[in-house]
Amino acid sequence: MRAITVTTPGGPETLAWTEVPDPRPGPGQVLVDVAATAVNRADILQRRGLYPPPPGASEILGLECSGTVAELGEGVRDWAVGDRVCALLSGGGYAQRVVVPATQLLPVPDGLDLHTAAALPEAACTVWSNLVMIGGMGAGQLVLIHGGGGGIGTHAIQVAVALGATVVTTAGSAGKLAACRELGAAVTVNYRDEDFVAAVAATGRGADLILDNMGAAYLGRNVEALAPDGQLCVIGMQGGRLGELDLGTLLAKRGRVFATGLRGRPETGRSSKAEIVAAVTAQLWPMVADGRVRPVVHAELPITEVADAHPMLDSPDTVGKVVLRVS
Amino acid sequence: MRAITVTTPGGPETLAWTEVPDPRPGPGQVLVDVAATAVNRADILQRRGLYPPPPGASEILGLECSGTVAELGEGVRDWAVGDRVCALLSGGGYAQRVVVPATQLLPVPDGLDLHTAAALPEAACTVWSNLVMIGGMGAGQLVLIHGGGGGIGTHAIQVAVALGATVVTTAGSAGKLAACRELGAAVTVNYRDEDFVAAVAATGRGADLILDNMGAAYLGRNVEALAPDGQLCVIGMQGGRLGELDLGTLLAKRGRVFATGLRGRPETGRSSKAEIVAAVTAQLWPMVADGRVRPVVHAELPITEVADAHPMLDSPDTVGKVVLRVS
Repeated sequence: MRAITVTTPGGPETLAWTEVPDPRPGPGQVLVDVAATAVNRADILQRRGLYPPPPGASEILGLECSGTVAELGEGVRDWAVGDRVCALLSGGGYAQRVVVPATQLLPVPDGLDLHTAAALPEAACTVWSNLVMIGGMGAGQLVLIHGGGGGIGTHAIQVAVALGATVVTTAGSAGKLAACRELGAAVTVNYRDEDFVAAVAATGRGADLILDNMGAAYLGRNVEALAPDGQLCVIGMQGGRLGELDLGTLLAKRGRVFATGLRGRPETGRSSKAEIVAAVTAQLWPMVADGRVRPVVHAELPITEVADAHPMLDSPDTVGKVVLRVS
Repeated sequence: MRAITVTTPGGPETLAWTEVPDPRPGPGQVLVDVAATAVNRADILQRRGLYPPPPGASEILGLECSGTVAELGEGVRDWAVGDRVCALLSGGGYAQRVVVPATQLLPVPDGLDLHTAAALPEAACTVWSNLVMIGGMGAGQLVLIHGGGGGIGTHAIQVAVALGATVVTTAGSAGKLAACRELGAAVTVNYRDEDFVAAVAATGRGADLILDNMGAAYLGRNVEALAPDGQLCVIGMQGGRLGELDLGTLLAKRGRVFATGLRGRPETGRSSKAEIVAAVTAQLWPMVADGRVRPVVHAELPITEVADAHPMLDSPDTVGKVVLRVS
């Protein structure tokens, strides 16, 4: 099969569509003929050599895909050859075929086309696991979502609104902010010239839950923006990893800070990918099927144009996900 | 009545046993004739002028007491005059009489004498709310308890062991460490010359839960000591409030940091004192009654000797609580 490989860690030009061995499904795994994959920020870090895959994972980039089940490994009973699926991957999505544990497959939500479904697994599993399963997001809460225009942000806004929360969101361009408002954000903040702490305070309350991708750079101000019993969830460190935490402020608010990733989670058991995928399928997929939550896709490019796709994540014009069509 | 008042913020010599007006119970409150109170580190901060009482709370020191119900405010139905009780207070315990919301009263656990019961409410409510209600402490977990020789620490060790957890604990003297082992700690660490991160690592795993009273000084090392999905609970800042948090390490472990206090919590509703007191009465009191968890009292002094009692909290020889007898 063909797959995108990294010739030397570095810029997008290092990505090449090359011939590699076909993967084979082991016990409990499924082989998927990939229809599409999507770009995540982790792919860019991995391309640059800064985010090695976890032990046992494919060296090939790609943390999510959609496609058709081509072959079942030993002991797989819940899926059949020909099923249209999407999948949460530990790697390997930028390829014509990928092997994935059966517990990380999701059906394509009703009403969604196969290629668009590739834009969902990472955002859905990240948002649901952090904001809902850990954070307990629900009706009446004030939720601050940083990077509202991105793939995770556009998804998180919709899930928060669907669950009855009020959303304050940050982004860096007028276009992104307008898109966030269309998705249901009540308050939008341009982080280039506005202070999100003041914007939260102007609502008359603090943030019950914050989804953050900036890490150290926002740590102090995020804690300032928290409501009593509020929770800060850090899923990215685009603003650095070493931050100053004011434990006095946190204690006065009885606040919590947690940081999680999907990729390093165990496949099964407590706080595993299987647990998250099952919850997303049961609870979030109905919201996608009835249109309350829809994938926001900025562009769909052929996988051979991946070198053009990666830089799109840093463009002020990009809203939502960038999908790579494989077949 | 008489109460301990602070003449000028400062050392123990500023504490005086003086005549003050009797408090009167309002609706939903109860007047308690105090038998005993106990010393908390917060009392010392308040004495020094560093920890003002929350709005509406008594200016008098004292966050817990035992005694006898003397009078019921309007609408109180669950208690009767003459009931032997202990209470979680927002202040006012260093006195002959104190007014407390009925929802913050607890019965004296079976088999415990009235004066000793004064040593329980703060430690019990702090440990249960943080380690059990928020932290989910349970069988099979590895729990790191800092300051194991203190009032909170001696209580936390016993609750952890009673729930089936394995305890690693730190303290600063051989006597305290021996006491911790007697209470059931599996591993004891003298923080003056041993590294608790190494001691946790030597168990072959990380800490699922850490109870910390040092704040900033231990923040980095606590995060290092966490297991995957581990939680760090900060309840004191004896080592400062501004700490450096490595979000990269936290994210790799999917760790959580939370910081809480009891005193600022609302009286009723979500995450309130009433909620905690009810859980402690229902779930922890049976463990006290059957002896699995017992109050550890270092000394019981007459309240008029409070100036000798306060410095005991910093002595290497003190193990457990210091009780002040009022009547």
